Amino acid sequence: MAEPADHGGHDRGGAAFTVRDAALAARAAATKLATTTGDERNAALRAIASALEGSWADVLAANREDIAAAREAGRSPTVLDRLSISRQQLDGLAEMARALADEADPVGGIASGSVMPNGLEVRRITVPLGVVGLIYEGRPNVTVDAAVLCLKSGNAALLRGSSSARRTNAALVRAMRTSLADTAVPVDAVQSVPDAGHGAVRELMSLRGLVDVLVPRGGSGLIQATVRESAVPVIETGVGNCHVYVDEHADLDKALAILLNAKTHRPSVCNATESLLVHEAVASAFLPRALTALAGHGVTVHGDERVRSFHDAVVPATADDWGREYLSLELSAAVVGSLESAVEHIRRYGSGHTEAIVTDSQSAARRFVAALDTAVVAVNASTRFADGGELGLGTELGISTQKLHARGPMGLTALTTTKYVLVGDGHIRGGAAAPMP
Amino acid sequence: MAEPADHGGHDRGGAAFTVRDAALAARAAATKLATTTGDERNAALRAIASALEGSWADVLAANREDIAAAREAGRSPTVLDRLSISRQQLDGLAEMARALADEADPVGGIASGSVMPNGLEVRRITVPLGVVGLIYEGRPNVTVDAAVLCLKSGNAALLRGSSSARRTNAALVRAMRTSLADTAVPVDAVQSVPDAGHGAVRELMSLRGLVDVLVPRGGSGLIQATVRESAVPVIETGVGNCHVYVDEHADLDKALAILLNAKTHRPSVCNATESLLVHEAVASAFLPRALTALAGHGVTVHGDERVRSFHDAVVPATADDWGREYLSLELSAAVVGSLESAVEHIRRYGSGHTEAIVTDSQSAARRFVAALDTAVVAVNASTRFADGGELGLGTELGISTQKLHARGPMGLTALTTTKYVLVGDGHIRGGAAAPMP
Repeated sequence: MAEPADHGGHDRGGAAFTVRDAALAARAAATKLATTTGDERNAALRAIASALEGSWADVLAANREDIAAAREAGRSPTVLDRLSISRQQLDGLAEMARALADEADPVGGIASGSVMPNGLEVRRITVPLGVVGLIYEGRPNVTVDAAVLCLKSGNAALLRGSSSARRTNAALVRAMRTSLADTAVPVDAVQSVPDAGHGAVRELMSLRGLVDVLVPRGGSGLIQATVRESAVPVIETGVGNCHVYVDEHADLDKALAILLNAKTHRPSVCNATESLLVHEAVASAFLPRALTALAGHGVTVHGDERVRSFHDAVVPATADDWGREYLSLELSAAVVGSLESAVEHIRRYGSGHTEAIVTDSQSAARRFVAALDTAVVAVNASTRFADGGELGLGTELGISTQKLHARGPMGLTALTTTKYVLVGDGHIRGGAAAPMP
Repeated sequence: MAEPADHGGHDRGGAAFTVRDAALAARAAATKLATTTGDERNAALRAIASALEGSWADVLAANREDIAAAREAGRSPTVLDRLSISRQQLDGLAEMARALADEADPVGGIASGSVMPNGLEVRRITVPLGVVGLIYEGRPNVTVDAAVLCLKSGNAALLRGSSSARRTNAALVRAMRTSLADTAVPVDAVQSVPDAGHGAVRELMSLRGLVDVLVPRGGSGLIQATVRESAVPVIETGVGNCHVYVDEHADLDKALAILLNAKTHRPSVCNATESLLVHEAVASAFLPRALTALAGHGVTVHGDERVRSFHDAVVPATADDWGREYLSLELSAAVVGSLESAVEHIRRYGSGHTEAIVTDSQSAARRFVAALDTAVVAVNASTRFADGGELGLGTELGISTQKLHARGPMGLTALTTTKYVLVGDGHIRGGAAAPMP
């Protein structure tokens, strides 16, 4: 077999396979997928798991080529690190596909239903979106991750990874597509977008009607560019500039535990806390302890003048610090005069992801929850709980900071829509017809 | 009082009031609105109803001026008709605002909730979207309709009507804003976008972050342009090229009743049927009756060759007919060889709005429902039931043909989003922290 093209093993006799062709093939596959059963899709996931386990030698060989090419092109160690995939990670992906096969089916449920007074039966059923386009950077594991999440939810996956990982991605797609040939899921349900530089991404973003939704996964630059430029609707996972506000009525032991957990448990993720606000009434009781503990965990604090007065290790915060998502052991910190000032600050600098208040006052908690326009508000709990797994949503797609369709941690239902099914027995609509316009 | 500006009665001492200023004012109002109670919003709706009743003389005077100006500009009778508003319509709008005040509150409910094994309480609560931008053509009644729907659901309304109706719209907005001054709802919750031609619309579409959603109401040209060009997310209400498919297992009496209802009950609306497909096995039993009945109702049928063989009044269908939304007493019609051919035809020409099958076969109904990617499927019922009121959704915003956020008939919940509220008692996330990236 010749070196397969990036779209995943087609041989079209040299004819150029365009982004549109890939989308058309995915659309046709989505139509077939819509009538598969959950059992059939789960069988396909298990076939993919086995295929991945059987193809690790191919995938790792392709990955070594990608890494060599990137090294030759002088890419940074971070890029090289992101690009590499290990045998262990491959096994993890196979395991994930099998675990997903055992999860409940996100499609086919009845979202709502009733029988109307005239006897018309009304059901709103959960159905796949259709064709899901994924645009992602670096890590080739997203290729498998995205494909199996789409298949589980009955969607065809149109994959657009980064050029630097194209050999690895092609090997992964080839393994998945080969395994689908013996299942009820059409092979074209996993489809790569031909690699044609940024033009391919732009074309993908223009295919409204053929592609139902785009899910960019990667840095905020990629996500914002997709949101701005795409005619296809986008599911946006966003930046997390999360705050912990320590209220005047806070239990300070709980506040310290929550702050340390929120900042240091996993600093590189979007639900990690980036900013601390402390009510002035408890500043002198809380900040000396908190700043010492933070320093002990290696956290650099960028503080306003009042915060700095409590600890020598605090560096001065600049205007930029309040809006930053550090994703590292850094934290901005300020003293505020009231809960309302904390809310004002968060409204100004927050990213609408997750905000926490530590307080024993019911009234304060109620005001904080009502006043903030954000995906998640945590009361006396770490911002780290803004996570699909922690909230019982099963496999998480990401955390949405948009307001339409899905907000906050998203489970697989974010890749579904609904269809009204009306069942009557010759029902016609009564009442006088309106006059002609 | 001097002639108020179009944004609804501000006097800013001559300083230019921009689209962005209007959006900022609406955003500030939305922040205040988010903490109002349902009772307070309902009181505001009743105040608006009274104000509209008290201001009819002003509104009708403004409307006469708009009509005179449009006539002078040589606008068509259709435009003049759309522009005019009657005393009776004004009373109807006031009545509608009062009825809305009596409806259940679309915000503040718990969309889902649970207590996690670690005791963390999780609630997903329904909250307003924030700032809703409305772009609409012609009819000035939309000014009131849109404003009260937004207020009921806790959103600030940013209104952009057509220039030809600007005096009428300004009088309506002035009446509503004046009445809000004595309520808990901020006056700026009803806000007009300054009239600056198409540039104003373009600016409105660019205000992602300030405006949460745009709802275009009007012809499909307006809607498609908004969808394509807007960086702000759009709620799209779409074209309805609805089909009735008469299956080989149909009860032909029911089929005829459904067809006549779907086509003639109210031909000008999007859930009216535009196309008939008949299985060849019942064509000779059904079509002669059906075509005679349609002719008796004044319907012009554009048929394929086989349909034309059954009735002299059928005119030949052109390729364009299959995709047309006539919105009048016209109908395209074809004979198909199988249910699958009907599905193929609908996939090709349908608009994803509402499709009906008439059949007594469970198997046929099941296949038809599963195979079509559409907002509504009706089995043995008229396409006219694709309507929020008929499905028990209360006041309807429109019928969405998009898949994200809302699909099919939309109630007020389409103007809401959700917020996760997590309540703990010092909860921190356990488990080993991941290594630093």
